[in-house]
Amino acid sequence: MPEPLPVVVGGTIAIDNVKTPTAEETNLLGGSASYAALAASYFTGPVHLVGVVGHDFPEQHLRMLEGHGVTLDGVARSEGDSFTWSGEYHENMNDRTTHNVAVNVLEDWTVSLPASISAAPIMVLANMSPRNQQQMLEQSTAAKRFVLADTMDLWIGIAREELNEVLKGIDLFVINEGEAREFAGTPNLIQAGAILRKKGPRYVVIKLGEFGAILFGPSEDHHGLFRCCAFPLQEVTDPTGAGDTFLGALAGYLASRGHLDFSFTEIRDAVVRGTVVASFTCEAFSTKELENLPEQELMTRMELFREMSCW
Amino acid sequence: MPEPLPVVVGGTIAIDNVKTPTAEETNLLGGSASYAALAASYFTGPVHLVGVVGHDFPEQHLRMLEGHGVTLDGVARSEGDSFTWSGEYHENMNDRTTHNVAVNVLEDWTVSLPASISAAPIMVLANMSPRNQQQMLEQSTAAKRFVLADTMDLWIGIAREELNEVLKGIDLFVINEGEAREFAGTPNLIQAGAILRKKGPRYVVIKLGEFGAILFGPSEDHHGLFRCCAFPLQEVTDPTGAGDTFLGALAGYLASRGHLDFSFTEIRDAVVRGTVVASFTCEAFSTKELENLPEQELMTRMELFREMSCW
Repeated sequence: MPEPLPVVVGGTIAIDNVKTPTAEETNLLGGSASYAALAASYFTGPVHLVGVVGHDFPEQHLRMLEGHGVTLDGVARSEGDSFTWSGEYHENMNDRTTHNVAVNVLEDWTVSLPASISAAPIMVLANMSPRNQQQMLEQSTAAKRFVLADTMDLWIGIAREELNEVLKGIDLFVINEGEAREFAGTPNLIQAGAILRKKGPRYVVIKLGEFGAILFGPSEDHHGLFRCCAFPLQEVTDPTGAGDTFLGALAGYLASRGHLDFSFTEIRDAVVRGTVVASFTCEAFSTKELENLPEQELMTRMELFREMSCW
Repeated sequence: MPEPLPVVVGGTIAIDNVKTPTAEETNLLGGSASYAALAASYFTGPVHLVGVVGHDFPEQHLRMLEGHGVTLDGVARSEGDSFTWSGEYHENMNDRTTHNVAVNVLEDWTVSLPASISAAPIMVLANMSPRNQQQMLEQSTAAKRFVLADTMDLWIGIAREELNEVLKGIDLFVINEGEAREFAGTPNLIQAGAILRKKGPRYVVIKLGEFGAILFGPSEDHHGLFRCCAFPLQEVTDPTGAGDTFLGALAGYLASRGHLDFSFTEIRDAVVRGTVVASFTCEAFSTKELENLPEQELMTRMELFREMSCW
């Protein structure tokens, strides 16, 4: 077994209020970095969380993360209110309406990586402002590193140049379908993947929600393409954080390989794991399924997924 | 090598006028049965086409089909005008606007299966009115048979009861994503597959367009589920008929097995072939790519598809 590498995960740490067609829950753990760090913790450790929380942030959420080997040295405490998202899923559980985003403590947050974690060789820039993502990159002291990043439509719209700058410094970029089409300026996803790779990252993953993901890499290796389905779910309780979970599990699996010179096959296997772990996130509100996931259940679903998707 | 079984394919035979964001072509071969029969001919023979054409139907389309071993004994000639579809694809090549549907000779068409083809053990009811599909079923004289059927939103809307009747007599039902959600009355596709199977067919395939397909079967066999991606295309020229191609290739591959007691694995392999053959249809207008497809190119893409989708 290789020695797993430490991972640093920066992004948002939020309080979520989520309504679905059948239920509603408040004061939930949310945020891109929360999901990603927790998901990564299933494959590697330590996982260093980087973000900011307000005075009102529920302590039990942080204790839960610590219980999974997630360190909080990089989490700033602010006197303001926590970043809060309130939204509602429609009947199809894909579309959602955001009722309220209270940026709060995120507004003035500047990343400050403690020396204890700045050298982590795997860096995850979960969805947050490109400004904060750039600060993460600049403060990294790793002699050699592999950086993964995500984003969202908001930043493509209002901070495209900053995002383009970030992309020059990263190795693997994940982005969802609609954002990829918009950011690349083409309706064809295969073309979009190639266009996004030209912005810098060696690997690009376009997330397709319930339809899985497409991995793009250098064309000389495995044709530069892997098409991963999603694990079929009979019941989607709350898809919030599925994409962040995907990214975190992907990064955590790579960290577990104990080196940084990943083959296409290793990236592909990481995408498969990201997909499977994300399916658990969809089965309960917030991180509730993800935080109580026995390793055996993950292994069983991995095997089932292979049987259902390969021939 | 098993002895391939004959296939009878009933459905529409149309003249299509297709506009895309970059090109426009008229007087094309179209119709559900045309694509399905041609696709089936790559795997088995003879393939018996059943449908109706008008006085104005271009003879070269029929000659092309005959050149692929498709027999025309079941094609009725009418004095009216041919069934014609005129439509336009939007920028994303998924959505389309139908400008004109001229039902013409289809209006009064009654299926009449010649004795020479009514005993074909594999029967394909490509998209047409459930009334015509039922006539096909009633005129089949096969002692044992395997029947595949497709439909469209129109029939779910205006002929739901007739369609439910047809479903009781078929073995494998293909339907696209949006139609499946509507027909089953649930936004969840995995639930939709189970609901549609309860209407009769042992196997249901939900087509997802550029995202592939999901095969549902009895749960005791391979968990009753196979999730097939689509072959990734950098350029989609005209997706018209991709679903019909999928159905025809699926049926043709099953016919090539030389028996009717298909295992889940055989159905799965048929779905994979349907997916790959359909990808060729998307690469040119009408059947132009499909009608000139070297077997080696199909084999190469099959292998490429496996490498890109399995792990």
